[in-house]
Amino acid sequence: MGPPPAVADVRRAVRLALDGTAPGSLVLVACSGGADSLALAAATGFVAPRAGLRAGLLTVDHDLQPGSDDRARDLVRLAPSLCLDPAEAVRVRVGTEGGPEAAARQARYAALSEAAERLGAAAVLLGHTRDDQAETVLLGLARGSGTRSLAGMPARAGLYLRPLLGLGRRTTAAACAGMGLSPWEDPHNRDPRYTRVRVRTRLLPALEDELGPGVAEALARTADLCRDDADALDGWAGRAYAEAVARGAGDSALSDIADEPGAVVLAVREVVDLPSAVRRRVLRRAAIEAGSPPGTLAAAHVLQVDRLVTAWRGQRRVEVPGGIGVVRRYGTLVFARHPASPIS
Amino acid sequence: MGPPPAVADVRRAVRLALDGTAPGSLVLVACSGGADSLALAAATGFVAPRAGLRAGLLTVDHDLQPGSDDRARDLVRLAPSLCLDPAEAVRVRVGTEGGPEAAARQARYAALSEAAERLGAAAVLLGHTRDDQAETVLLGLARGSGTRSLAGMPARAGLYLRPLLGLGRRTTAAACAGMGLSPWEDPHNRDPRYTRVRVRTRLLPALEDELGPGVAEALARTADLCRDDADALDGWAGRAYAEAVARGAGDSALSDIADEPGAVVLAVREVVDLPSAVRRRVLRRAAIEAGSPPGTLAAAHVLQVDRLVTAWRGQRRVEVPGGIGVVRRYGTLVFARHPASPIS
Repeated sequence: MGPPPAVADVRRAVRLALDGTAPGSLVLVACSGGADSLALAAATGFVAPRAGLRAGLLTVDHDLQPGSDDRARDLVRLAPSLCLDPAEAVRVRVGTEGGPEAAARQARYAALSEAAERLGAAAVLLGHTRDDQAETVLLGLARGSGTRSLAGMPARAGLYLRPLLGLGRRTTAAACAGMGLSPWEDPHNRDPRYTRVRVRTRLLPALEDELGPGVAEALARTADLCRDDADALDGWAGRAYAEAVARGAGDSALSDIADEPGAVVLAVREVVDLPSAVRRRVLRRAAIEAGSPPGTLAAAHVLQVDRLVTAWRGQRRVEVPGGIGVVRRYGTLVFARHPASPIS
Repeated sequence: MGPPPAVADVRRAVRLALDGTAPGSLVLVACSGGADSLALAAATGFVAPRAGLRAGLLTVDHDLQPGSDDRARDLVRLAPSLCLDPAEAVRVRVGTEGGPEAAARQARYAALSEAAERLGAAAVLLGHTRDDQAETVLLGLARGSGTRSLAGMPARAGLYLRPLLGLGRRTTAAACAGMGLSPWEDPHNRDPRYTRVRVRTRLLPALEDELGPGVAEALARTADLCRDDADALDGWAGRAYAEAVARGAGDSALSDIADEPGAVVLAVREVVDLPSAVRRRVLRRAAIEAGSPPGTLAAAHVLQVDRLVTAWRGQRRVEVPGGIGVVRRYGTLVFARHPASPIS
């Protein structure tokens, strides 16, 4: 008799994700003790040795709730029985930048990356499921910032793997039950002050009620398609940006603007005929390279810069966040901290 | 004293949309009598003569509700007072294909296009607002079929213009009130058997409640960005398709498969290195050109075909809707109604 179906599903997902990892490597599971990452940890402890890999556990103590250190210690003690060794609790100090959720996330990933490097791990496995992916897409939709924000979380990014993106939360809960494991229920996961919690507990059920079952799957599929689209367009824009900078350098040698420190100079004729989706990505990239912070550079700013290309009638300089100004001069666009005034 | 702000907003939107229409042209407003299209009709009757254009009204009688003919006649009688001439009621017979909403839409557009051509109109104006756009994006999201289904309705497509996509339904209602017009309330707009009605009356309010105001704007912005992205990728895929067909014809001349009637032959080496978002668009296009119906050809089918390119291990032919089979032979992919079995 094989394992319960949910256990088999989680193990299969882990096996697929680890396929291709060099034999003898160490892989680490980031585990909070919740159902998703606990199922992932147990499945990895089962799968990794059979695939010629070593597997360990990391748990991050955010030190935000009483008893978080006890829980971290309990997980580290549980690890050997799941065939996970080494096992470490990493305590982090959560800042405030970008709100509590973003600050906790940033501290967590920094700690995981540090531990992975210190332990020489080939991969860090994260327990995000299809339901997490669906929530991420809805949050991106509410931002209204386009394909990349709908792309959700990738299954693989650098060291990080997300083997469970194809499985629902119901499966991880069933897998824990099937392995006799008692997951921890994070009270934050029920706190409606968090936007993600409201998306999970109110919006997704409302979407299922009104549009029919399968909404989470549809959102996850949307994420996959949007990620592929965004990757293809970013690739195109990257090549176009390099071309426009190379030509811009040639063109600006004819003028007095080549020596502004940190300036990015694009040849207008290299970007004017690009499809707008690509051209705006090129302009966004130029603004960021010149020093504009990606987090505050909005689509509306890029649209203003775009009008210097597509609706040129001698405009003055366009200001974008980070004290960067953009002017059009001699057939080039100059992105710089203190550009001279435009010559129309 | 100028007109009320909502009236001014609608007129400005119409003026912008008609900018560039050749002087003396006739433009037609498609009007159901509801607030959106009634505000559009009145604004067009005001703006068009001042822009050197003639404006008329079309109303479609779907003959699905008792009294629909009376309403159509009332609108035609109202038209001259809105400075709209000619004014016509067009009766259509709604079929059943694709469900009641899709069938009504198809009959409506066919009738509008026919009348526009008969009257020699340069444009047909439609009353869709930002709220309609937001609903369309949510419906596309629920389908999970990617960027194009999130792209919503374009502001301009062939003869059709949608001047009000930047305005909310609240503005069109206020504009009607400001012009002393009493819009018709379509009982279908409150019937929860329609998915779109549930999206409007339940889902969008739930999204606003949980994610904050501005969700409709964010969804409309998402539509604009996704449309640009989809256009750029479709353009790229169109060029790649033409290349792959041209090379495929050359390659297949070496084999026995060039004479299958209606077959589409792609050179594998022309598509294998494309980003997956572009390659899948090329394969989808090839399947459709070979006779697969776009409406039933799903992403999952295209993915199966893609594996003939990216995970080739001598697979047998892949079936796609419309009785089309796809085989890989001699470095080509052959899309045809009755392809011979593959040679691996």
